[in-house]
Amino acid sequence: MSGPGAVVRGVRGREPLVHCLTAAVSMNLVADALLAAGARPMMTETLDEAPFVVRRADALLANLGTLSTDGRGGIPATVEVARELGVPWVLDPAAIGPSPVRVDLARQLLALGPSVVRANASEVLVLAGDSTGGRGADSTADPAEALAAARTIAARYGTVVAISGAQDVITDGRREVRVSNGHPLLTRVTGTGCTLGALTAACCSVASPLDAAVAATVWLGVAGDRAARSCPRPGSFKVELVDQLFELDGDEVERGASVS
Amino acid sequence: MSGPGAVVRGVRGREPLVHCLTAAVSMNLVADALLAAGARPMMTETLDEAPFVVRRADALLANLGTLSTDGRGGIPATVEVARELGVPWVLDPAAIGPSPVRVDLARQLLALGPSVVRANASEVLVLAGDSTGGRGADSTADPAEALAAARTIAARYGTVVAISGAQDVITDGRREVRVSNGHPLLTRVTGTGCTLGALTAACCSVASPLDAAVAATVWLGVAGDRAARSCPRPGSFKVELVDQLFELDGDEVERGASVS
Amino acid sequence: MSGPGAVVRGVRGREPLVHCLTAAVSMNLVADALLAAGARPMMTETLDEAPFVVRRADALLANLGTLSTDGRGGIPATVEVARELGVPWVLDPAAIGPSPVRVDLARQLLALGPSVVRANASEVLVLAGDSTGGRGADSTADPAEALAAARTIAARYGTVVAISGAQDVITDGRREVRVSNGHPLLTRVTGTGCTLGALTAACCSVASPLDAAVAATVWLGVAGDRAARSCPRPGSFKVELVDQLFELDGDEVERGASVS
Repeated sequence: MSGPGAVVRGVRGREPLVHCLTAAVSMNLVADALLAAGARPMMTETLDEAPFVVRRADALLANLGTLSTDGRGGIPATVEVARELGVPWVLDPAAIGPSPVRVDLARQLLALGPSVVRANASEVLVLAGDSTGGRGADSTADPAEALAAARTIAARYGTVVAISGAQDVITDGRREVRVSNGHPLLTRVTGTGCTLGALTAACCSVASPLDAAVAATVWLGVAGDRAARSCPRPGSFKVELVDQLFELDGDEVERGASVS
Repeated sequence: MSGPGAVVRGVRGREPLVHCLTAAVSMNLVADALLAAGARPMMTETLDEAPFVVRRADALLANLGTLSTDGRGGIPATVEVARELGVPWVLDPAAIGPSPVRVDLARQLLALGPSVVRANASEVLVLAGDSTGGRGADSTADPAEALAAARTIAARYGTVVAISGAQDVITDGRREVRVSNGHPLLTRVTGTGCTLGALTAACCSVASPLDAAVAATVWLGVAGDRAARSCPRPGSFKVELVDQLFELDGDEVERGASVS
Repeated sequence: MSGPGAVVRGVRGREPLVHCLTAAVSMNLVADALLAAGARPMMTETLDEAPFVVRRADALLANLGTLSTDGRGGIPATVEVARELGVPWVLDPAAIGPSPVRVDLARQLLALGPSVVRANASEVLVLAGDSTGGRGADSTADPAEALAAARTIAARYGTVVAISGAQDVITDGRREVRVSNGHPLLTRVTGTGCTLGALTAACCSVASPLDAAVAATVWLGVAGDRAARSCPRPGSFKVELVDQLFELDGDEVERGASVS
C-alpha cells in the first residue's frame, strides 16, 4: 500500500504522460490541473491519432462527457491499445443516463476492465443497469444504493470503483475506503469531476488502482479544502484550486487526508 | 411581469437544467457562469445524443459559434424536440455573416420560433437579410437600424429579440426595454455573449421570454459593472464576473438594474 | 525593421482579425489573449466555413493541436485561400511526432510556405524529418540541433522559424535573433505555445514575418516575466498573463525586451 503522500511524490517524480480523451467543456482545466500536479497532458481523440498517441502514454483517461463523433470513433480503439500495452486507464462515464449511445459505450468500455471507474452515485447506478440517471452531470442517487452497485461492478470486472460525492467511497469489491476531503464549491465549477479522473489516471502510473484512486481523491479534496478557505466564490476558487494542486507537496496531502 | 430580481430568485430556486449547444471556444465559461448563477449546464451536441438529452432540460441554448459538423447535425433535431416538448429555447446566431452555411442554419432555426433571439446589431441585420455581417464576433452595425430589423423579426416569428451592445435593447415587436448595465470589458473577454444567451435560457425556464431576456441582460450587466470596479483588466475581470454571478442575489440585481 | 514596441503599437492600432484554427484544449486562452492584446479572434475550422471566414481575416493561425476531423478537413483549404489572398499565416505543428497523420499534414502545410513556423525544438526536428518527437507537447530535443534544422527549413520554404524554449531562437535561414524573455511557469499552463502562435499571426498583420515573430515572442515573454513576479503559481499566473497582455504598452514591451 502506498499512502497519498507517496503517490503524490511518485507523480511529481515521474511526470507521467497522461493521454486524456475527455469532455470538450472542461479539457482546459483538466490539462492545467495535470500540469500543476506535475503530470503532462495529451488530449487528442480521433481514431486516426489517438491509438498512436496512447503508445507513448503512462496512463489514459477515457471520459465520455460531451461525447463527440471523433471521440466515439477514437475512444474504444485507444482503450484497446492501452490494454494491449498494459497502460493503466480510467473510465469516467460522465453524465451517462439520458443518451442510449453513451450508456452503451460506457458498458462496452467497462467490459474491457478499466483500472479505475470514477463516477458519481447516479452514474454508477446507470452503469450497473439500475437507473436511468441523475440531473445533467449531477447525482441524485442514494449513496448506499450506489455502493452496492459499485461493489458488484468492481468484483465482476476486476476494477476499482471510485464514487464521488459529499463523502467519496472507493472500493475494489472487497475493501472500502472513505474520503471526507473536498468542499461543496467543487460541484460549482465545471470539470472538477473530469479533473479527478485525470489525476486518478496520473496516480495509476505510479501506484495500484486502489491506492491511486484514494490518493487522487485526497489530493483534489485537500486542494479544494484549502482553496475554499481563501476563495469562497467559484471563479476565484477554480484558479486557487489549480494553484493548490501546484503548491501541495506529498507531506501536506498526507497530513490533510481524511480517510477511513 | 416579473422583474429581474424575481427572475434571479426563480432561477436560484428551480436550478434549471440548461442544455447548451454552444461554441467550443467559450463553453467552459458558459458552464461555469450557469453553475455560478444556480443553474445546471449540459453540453452535448451530436445528433445521436442531443435530441435525447434535451428531453430532460428545462431550457435550451442553440448558439452557432464555432459551428462544428457535430453541431450542424445535432442542433436542428434538438431544437425540434425542444419545440415539441415546449422547452423554451434561445437562438444565438453568433458571428453569422461570413459563412453562408451559418446564415442558412440561423434562418432555418429562426423560422422554428425561438423564445428569444440574442444577437449583436450586426448579427440581427444579417439574420434579417439586411447585411453581410460585422467584424468577427463584433458588431459594426448601427443600433437604430438593427432595432428596426429586430422589431420585424420579433413580430414575424413571434419571438423576443435581445440586441446586445453598449446599450442593450430587448423587443417583442411591440414593446422595447433598454438596459444600460454592463461594462466595455465584457467585450474584451471571450464568451460573454454566449454566457448571456445561456443565462437568458436559464431565465426562460422561470419567466416569460421578454422578462427572461431583460432579467438575464440586467443580471450579467450588474455582475459586469461590479466586476469591473475591482478588476479593471480582462483576465481577472473574467474570474470576478463568475464570482459576481455567484454572489449577487435578486435584490442586488434589482437595485442595480438600469432599465428604461 | 520594426522593433517589438512598434509592432505592439501596430497591433493595437489595427485591431487585426485573426482567424485561429487551433487546439480545442486552449482555444479559450488563445481568444482571450488576442482580445487582451488588442486583436480580434475568430475560431471556426470546418471545411464548410473556414475557407469563407478567412477571407475577412488579417492573419491566420494553423495550429495542429488536438487535430479534429473538422480541422483536418478545413485547415488545408483555409490555408490555400489565405495564400491566394496574401493573408499572412503561421504554422504551429503542435505536438507532432506520435501520429503519422499530423506529421504528414504539417509537412504538407509547410510546403505551402507559411509566413512563420512556431514550434519547440522537438517539433522542429520532426518537421525536418530528423526525429519522431518529444514528450507530449513538451520538447526533449537539443536546441542546437533544432536550430540547424530550423535554418534548413527556413531557407528551403522561404519562411521564418521561431523555436520556443528557455531561450527562444528565431531565424529566417540567414539571420538569427535570440530572445531571453519568458518564465518557466509558461510551460506549466496549457496553451501558452498556441497563444504565442496566435500573437505571432496578429503581429504578421502589421510587420514582416521576422519582426512579427520576434515581437510576439518578446511580448508574451515580457508579459510572462511580469506575471510571474506577482503570481508564482500557475492558476493565478495564467489570469495575470492575460492581464499583462492587456496592460503592457509598446514602450514597456520594448524596454523589457531581452533580445540579441
